[in-house]
Amino acid sequence: MPQTNPNRFDPVQQAADMLELGVCYYPEQWPRAKWEEDARRMVELGLAWVRIGEFAWAHIEPRPGEFHWKSMDEAVDVLGKAGLKVILGTPTAAPPKWLVDRHPDILPVDVKGVVRKFGARRHYCFSSRRYRIEAARIVEAMAARYGANPFVHAWQTDNEYGDHDTIHSYSDEARRAFREWLAARYGTIEALNQAWGTSFWAMHYNGFDEIDLPNNLVEEPSPTHLVDYMRFSSDQVKSFNKAQVDIIRRHSPGRPVTHNFMSQNTDFNHYKVGEDIDVASWDVYPMGGLLNGRLSAEDKARYLRVGDPDQTAFNHDLYRAVGRGRVWVMEQQPGPVNWAAHNQAPADGMVRLWTWLAYAHGVDMVSYFRWRQAPFAQEQFHAGLLLPDSETDQGYLEVAQVIEEMKRIPRGEAREKAKVAIVLDYESRFATRALPQGRGYAGAAIALDWYSAVARLGVDVDIIGQHSDLAGYALVLAPDLVIVDPDFVARLKASDAKILFGPRSGSKTRDMHIPENLPPRPLCDLIDLRVTRVESLPDFHDERVLHGNSSYPVGTWRETVCTGETVLATFEGAYRNGSPALVGNEKARYLATLPQGEFLLKLIGEALAWAGVETLPDLGDLRVARRGRLHFAFNYGPAPAAVPAKPGATFLVGESLLAPADVAIWTVD
Amino acid sequence: MPQTNPNRFDPVQQAADMLELGVCYYPEQWPRAKWEEDARRMVELGLAWVRIGEFAWAHIEPRPGEFHWKSMDEAVDVLGKAGLKVILGTPTAAPPKWLVDRHPDILPVDVKGVVRKFGARRHYCFSSRRYRIEAARIVEAMAARYGANPFVHAWQTDNEYGDHDTIHSYSDEARRAFREWLAARYGTIEALNQAWGTSFWAMHYNGFDEIDLPNNLVEEPSPTHLVDYMRFSSDQVKSFNKAQVDIIRRHSPGRPVTHNFMSQNTDFNHYKVGEDIDVASWDVYPMGGLLNGRLSAEDKARYLRVGDPDQTAFNHDLYRAVGRGRVWVMEQQPGPVNWAAHNQAPADGMVRLWTWLAYAHGVDMVSYFRWRQAPFAQEQFHAGLLLPDSETDQGYLEVAQVIEEMKRIPRGEAREKAKVAIVLDYESRFATRALPQGRGYAGAAIALDWYSAVARLGVDVDIIGQHSDLAGYALVLAPDLVIVDPDFVARLKASDAKILFGPRSGSKTRDMHIPENLPPRPLCDLIDLRVTRVESLPDFHDERVLHGNSSYPVGTWRETVCTGETVLATFEGAYRNGSPALVGNEKARYLATLPQGEFLLKLIGEALAWAGVETLPDLGDLRVARRGRLHFAFNYGPAPAAVPAKPGATFLVGESLLAPADVAIWTVD
Amino acid sequence: MPQTNPNRFDPVQQAADMLELGVCYYPEQWPRAKWEEDARRMVELGLAWVRIGEFAWAHIEPRPGEFHWKSMDEAVDVLGKAGLKVILGTPTAAPPKWLVDRHPDILPVDVKGVVRKFGARRHYCFSSRRYRIEAARIVEAMAARYGANPFVHAWQTDNEYGDHDTIHSYSDEARRAFREWLAARYGTIEALNQAWGTSFWAMHYNGFDEIDLPNNLVEEPSPTHLVDYMRFSSDQVKSFNKAQVDIIRRHSPGRPVTHNFMSQNTDFNHYKVGEDIDVASWDVYPMGGLLNGRLSAEDKARYLRVGDPDQTAFNHDLYRAVGRGRVWVMEQQPGPVNWAAHNQAPADGMVRLWTWLAYAHGVDMVSYFRWRQAPFAQEQFHAGLLLPDSETDQGYLEVAQVIEEMKRIPRGEAREKAKVAIVLDYESRFATRALPQGRGYAGAAIALDWYSAVARLGVDVDIIGQHSDLAGYALVLAPDLVIVDPDFVARLKASDAKILFGPRSGSKTRDMHIPENLPPRPLCDLIDLRVTRVESLPDFHDERVLHGNSSYPVGTWRETVCTGETVLATFEGAYRNGSPALVGNEKARYLATLPQGEFLLKLIGEALAWAGVETLPDLGDLRVARRGRLHFAFNYGPAPAAVPAKPGATFLVGESLLAPADVAIWTVD
Repeated sequence: MPQTNPNRFDPVQQAADMLELGVCYYPEQWPRAKWEEDARRMVELGLAWVRIGEFAWAHIEPRPGEFHWKSMDEAVDVLGKAGLKVILGTPTAAPPKWLVDRHPDILPVDVKGVVRKFGARRHYCFSSRRYRIEAARIVEAMAARYGANPFVHAWQTDNEYGDHDTIHSYSDEARRAFREWLAARYGTIEALNQAWGTSFWAMHYNGFDEIDLPNNLVEEPSPTHLVDYMRFSSDQVKSFNKAQVDIIRRHSPGRPVTHNFMSQNTDFNHYKVGEDIDVASWDVYPMGGLLNGRLSAEDKARYLRVGDPDQTAFNHDLYRAVGRGRVWVMEQQPGPVNWAAHNQAPADGMVRLWTWLAYAHGVDMVSYFRWRQAPFAQEQFHAGLLLPDSETDQGYLEVAQVIEEMKRIPRGEAREKAKVAIVLDYESRFATRALPQGRGYAGAAIALDWYSAVARLGVDVDIIGQHSDLAGYALVLAPDLVIVDPDFVARLKASDAKILFGPRSGSKTRDMHIPENLPPRPLCDLIDLRVTRVESLPDFHDERVLHGNSSYPVGTWRETVCTGETVLATFEGAYRNGSPALVGNEKARYLATLPQGEFLLKLIGEALAWAGVETLPDLGDLRVARRGRLHFAFNYGPAPAAVPAKPGATFLVGESLLAPADVAIWTVD
Repeated sequence: MPQTNPNRFDPVQQAADMLELGVCYYPEQWPRAKWEEDARRMVELGLAWVRIGEFAWAHIEPRPGEFHWKSMDEAVDVLGKAGLKVILGTPTAAPPKWLVDRHPDILPVDVKGVVRKFGARRHYCFSSRRYRIEAARIVEAMAARYGANPFVHAWQTDNEYGDHDTIHSYSDEARRAFREWLAARYGTIEALNQAWGTSFWAMHYNGFDEIDLPNNLVEEPSPTHLVDYMRFSSDQVKSFNKAQVDIIRRHSPGRPVTHNFMSQNTDFNHYKVGEDIDVASWDVYPMGGLLNGRLSAEDKARYLRVGDPDQTAFNHDLYRAVGRGRVWVMEQQPGPVNWAAHNQAPADGMVRLWTWLAYAHGVDMVSYFRWRQAPFAQEQFHAGLLLPDSETDQGYLEVAQVIEEMKRIPRGEAREKAKVAIVLDYESRFATRALPQGRGYAGAAIALDWYSAVARLGVDVDIIGQHSDLAGYALVLAPDLVIVDPDFVARLKASDAKILFGPRSGSKTRDMHIPENLPPRPLCDLIDLRVTRVESLPDFHDERVLHGNSSYPVGTWRETVCTGETVLATFEGAYRNGSPALVGNEKARYLATLPQGEFLLKLIGEALAWAGVETLPDLGDLRVARRGRLHFAFNYGPAPAAVPAKPGATFLVGESLLAPADVAIWTVD
Repeated sequence: MPQTNPNRFDPVQQAADMLELGVCYYPEQWPRAKWEEDARRMVELGLAWVRIGEFAWAHIEPRPGEFHWKSMDEAVDVLGKAGLKVILGTPTAAPPKWLVDRHPDILPVDVKGVVRKFGARRHYCFSSRRYRIEAARIVEAMAARYGANPFVHAWQTDNEYGDHDTIHSYSDEARRAFREWLAARYGTIEALNQAWGTSFWAMHYNGFDEIDLPNNLVEEPSPTHLVDYMRFSSDQVKSFNKAQVDIIRRHSPGRPVTHNFMSQNTDFNHYKVGEDIDVASWDVYPMGGLLNGRLSAEDKARYLRVGDPDQTAFNHDLYRAVGRGRVWVMEQQPGPVNWAAHNQAPADGMVRLWTWLAYAHGVDMVSYFRWRQAPFAQEQFHAGLLLPDSETDQGYLEVAQVIEEMKRIPRGEAREKAKVAIVLDYESRFATRALPQGRGYAGAAIALDWYSAVARLGVDVDIIGQHSDLAGYALVLAPDLVIVDPDFVARLKASDAKILFGPRSGSKTRDMHIPENLPPRPLCDLIDLRVTRVESLPDFHDERVLHGNSSYPVGTWRETVCTGETVLATFEGAYRNGSPALVGNEKARYLATLPQGEFLLKLIGEALAWAGVETLPDLGDLRVARRGRLHFAFNYGPAPAAVPAKPGATFLVGESLLAPADVAIWTVD
């Protein structure tokens, strides 16, 4: 039904031809008397969208079956009449206490087997049959009431699937559903025994009803057991979300449905959830992202108030793929927040920078979280565009500046397909999470490191899945593609793209086995290679790679390979001196280690040159992007920097010497 | 009843006019044949007090209802007849196994929901109704038997409330009691919903019977939920303790009741428990305190065998406030102990130093833990005054020296009220524990840092609560006073004191909300200020403050303030250069950051000068104190140091050049 | 029965006169069609032994009572007919799912009280009565079927007792069994109360049925409670193992029974389990051992691909004692594995080196784990002699080299008793685990440090227990002998050995009390000493010891001793300057601290000289060993090194300048 549903939102028809801005608003948290004034000020500022409702269940239905619509009716009305387009959130991320008390099996169970109680949010198990019924009931009620409301222009399902580690529940309901999922996947228990390798350690099962969840074991479970549990959990999110989308589409045809994803969560397959929605959106919090992220302490200090220069851009590019070209920012950090280990404020200017960065990377709508800082409850330290006393905060002023600048930007410019694609494959992430083999191995950090190297050379990137269309790509980077589809390999082969594979590529079958003729067996049509040994190394090792005349430190992963291909770099030192570290042919290259820093930058630069992609000299702290005829530059560094604008550039915003935290936009005739 | 009870102990009447010494003794752990000899040696050494009984329940009542008084009768008799004053402990910190087996709901439950079993001590939940009955029963029995015993001169309730994280229990009984406490506090569930901000995340409650304890949640609970749970838990301690005090007073009028508190535990409001007892006492273990404490590794190495130079003094000053002027040391570390991560011995001389330090800070009785090291059970590595074979250990020799020195000290000198007060507010500690906002924020360390700066300048300090009398203070320091009483502000305003507030002061209402017109709203009668942004910073940031011509590192907390007051220091650097870091007027100053080290010392020095308080040059490792006409100096450093005695000083103990770990006492005519 | 059983295997009769090699094989994991080929290649390589069956329960009995013997019958037959001697493992380390589902009380319970579920291995509680019955049933069935099979030459019980922290279970069955064990040990509850010191903290018990397991307490339990639980758990392993041995001996007389122990696990008393088997074997994984081990990060980097130069040798010497002279290696790491935090590959040559090292230390059989790397399940990253595609891996090539070299080695050489013994006492390890007193105290690391110092001086070592025969030892080292048998002291006194005791020696009685006249009371017949104070120090302290004219850092343990003996080294510095750090007489010396590094090497060197044991100059990264007339040298360093061969040496393997990771073997006429 989904792809051919006549009610389905048509992205082309409604695509924005200029960035639109919005804000998240919680009428239920403020006196009724403030609403008109708030709506007026939103419009006055220049906002077009407002998101409401995503935690309003107890407000709408305070007691079982007792619906109090008046307040929500009025909120939609007040906001809509002021001229705002409403995005209505389904309130399923926060079931009311009375519901949880009536049906305790709604609650999720943590990995230790402890029930996770009511009192915050996301206190539900995706496998609870009762919760599926209740969620459908409330979504049906809301969609029926507001589906045709002229002010409701879009819908959001639930809120931030995956936050607070809620994808994986270890409840009785999850166990039951997992058994059913396995029966459907494998058909016979012997097929499961084969896949899970239960001849090892006598783990043989006689029936699906013997299967348990992979927690509280004496030692780690079969990696296939674990990855199947991750796949199952991922599928539960997809079906939970799709049930809501189906209801909304029935009642509110023609209005886009979105979900607000999180920065680079890999607990479920976002592409699959993305198939069922019209626009992907995500929530942008670069300050906490920096502190939790991949950078060294030194770099975290350097970028403390501007964030990782690549993490946000990477996610825009990722969710553009998840949304099949359409991506919004549903929550943009407007100042300091509350939830990280430390909560520094962004540098003044960053809210503006992030807004333009989003637009440059193809985002059509940026909504700030939140209109006004609430003076109570969990997130009271989380900034808004307004302070709790309704005075304007820094974010407000920067939004006003963006809106002013928008007037100088030509309309209708669209982000074009990039020449370079980086593969992000969720099942591969499940695989390395189940079998990291070395404590330091983190697919997310590796992919971002590779992305960063491309970005420092001034090149735009698309993030793609194995299902994505490969047309037009000159270079495909696969930093951690552990499980490879034969079909993807065939399409790579048929494409014009050159490919650089990271270590571990093609090292596991769909069943989490080592391929029959050793890794990277599925890639054998592209490159002649056999990995005969893999090792993870601690940080403190001192082994090196020789590349050209230069020697670089080896990363924390090392493979021994046999190859008929040209050897482009070799390991040096006492252990297997001369063993290939990088091999390749005209079509594909394979890295037998994880290069870092300077070496990675050099290798990516060479790969881009090999693929004929034009690069800039290393941009350092500067980043650039293109959207149609528009060129953007962003300065993440502490010092002014010259933007790489060609002679004859016309600056629409900023100028060629860019201050810290500043943005330049120009066109070139 | 308490304040007007005619039986209430009158501290003035019975105040000691010279330090008295005592010891903790466990007759039940030693053969009957040793008691007389032990008692004789105690008296011979010069001890006046002996504490017994606080873990004797199973000894007194080995089986349900079967009381074996003989042993305890004899112990009291033997000790009393030898000339010792007995402090009798109620044995409620260790209910017997038979009792726990009969009533398993006595046991506490940990934050993960796991029952904490019998086998050590403090295995009870303060909310267990059954345990309240049983505790009253055993206290009644003991008080009835010994209340009028001529040898029993004082009582101790229970033992070390809060040890082993036992204030917070997550049992069914605690949940029931918490609901009742909330119903009493709020009256209506809507008042609770308002206070907890349940319009956020749809956390709305329809009745008090829906409320659960704030553990095992998906994400953090409402901070008001959490702080109310801490207040409830604190009140449970107060009522548990008061029930015992009431029984004892009925049977043993005129004899002081104490409880032995721990070093700076902030799990409950000690002032409130202090209201119900006659003398506060506390247990002094500086070696473990150093290792668990605020200092850098470098300073921990420097003070390894002498302890933090300020932590013990701080606690004396705190418990002097808790005891409304009367404070004892119930357990003084006499050598190495067993319970810290490492258990170094104190330098020789420190037991003597700590004893005189206590006296200098207003302590009237110091009791050592313990008479003889027990060769079995959990604390067998914990020293006593005697070794397990009854030979004298180092502590014994130092006590003997103190007793010799006491003869040279004039009697009747009393600790005077200080000119400087530091506010320690338990509810503010609950508040920052519930909402730390940055991982590094620790009210206890901040207050101790401020105290230390004052102490290094040779100035005596009182610790006060918001209820305390402000008369006579020239300077009040409020390093972390998050929740401010309007009444306290009014009294500050009416007082002669100048006030220095730390960041976060007045930043939360009683309901844990941000004040209506932004922080520090309740202080607006004292200082014109509006905090528009708060941030916590990681350790590795590199921002600075400019004060006068000097630049100092900023701490891990930073606020943006708008003010009409004079700006006394400013932030410098790329982010909001020139933003006020310290502002003030003639009456009050407010710090927008957490100064450390040299900067803190400078600011405190300026505040003291501003308030007209006389200071000494930085004492470094030396500390001084005054008690009446007596001047004390203590050397915590590794090298001899000259004491800051005025010309004409008469040395009663020691001399003007003070050896490491040594004490000097002098008077000035 | 055991010692006089006529069926008992006679080690002397069957002792190998040359090293034999073997391999671990899992027929159930491979197609039937591969077995003959595999067997042929094993024999072709030169292997003599093959171990099978130790995880085959679900394979043999896939459903209750339904035995499928055919596959196992054929496997034994195929391997045996090819010329291999089969070691048959009992499959009790992995009960099938159907069994666990029928009897959930088989499952172990972790220290938090959570049931540890099926899905990996070792999912049983040693105290489960039901599991005892089921284990006996399956062992009986296997032993009856294969006991007289001509191809089955030896048996292995279970697999790696203690792996995954499975010795200690906190189940209801364990509690029941613990009560029974205590009743048997103490007879009366009053004896237990006395031993446990329950007069402390009112922990008194009225009956054995009141006793609980020592987990989930409010604070640490009585150390005697804890040590008794460790003893009980240890005894459960012994009786569980012995039940299997008895069954096997009944059905398979004359064939040795072994168990494959792990590297230096001290959760149970291995000597006691060793009493019941014929040959001790153990599993050699030096790569993970290095990373988890005692060395500094710097030394871990230095030895990254060769492992700790002493850990493996130490374990050979230990298991030679456990096996009363007979020791095998059941699993030798053949390449990188999967289970450590990082999994580096061994340097090429190390598989050969470890094989010869084993032989040099008295091992008669080395079996590699495993024949072929399995491409599925938990250990798929764990190397084998063959790659998953059956190609030969590095380990295979090195085994072939060893087999070639074996031809040049004279037969019949036996490891001789050493001149130096190091005492490893399991109950002492239980004691310091129960009462570490300082976070850094680790008996295993201390003993290995002492061993390493001896080894660096070129001296062979025996590991002994207190039960061991002392004849022939010139020097006995007791680095951490906390609980001393009076009988051992008497035998030491009567022996010719000199003894060096580490701190804490003799510091606890069997009941975990401090001895009556202070430690080390039981040693008073050997040395005149009284320890009056013990302390643990943090790493960052800076205290030193003066020995001769040199000053060395003190370790993290320090004692104050009174002694009539000669003082050989003293503490220096501000704290108790001149206090004895090493004291002794002609027979015995006692260290009052834990020397490290250079100081330890010097002290051990002096002790060897004192005992008249000939030493070599510090070998640095080289290690040597002797077996009969054979001299061995092993180079763990990164540079070639000269072996300490006397003039006239005949090199059988290698030469006098030894490459890294290389081995030399020579004889001297």
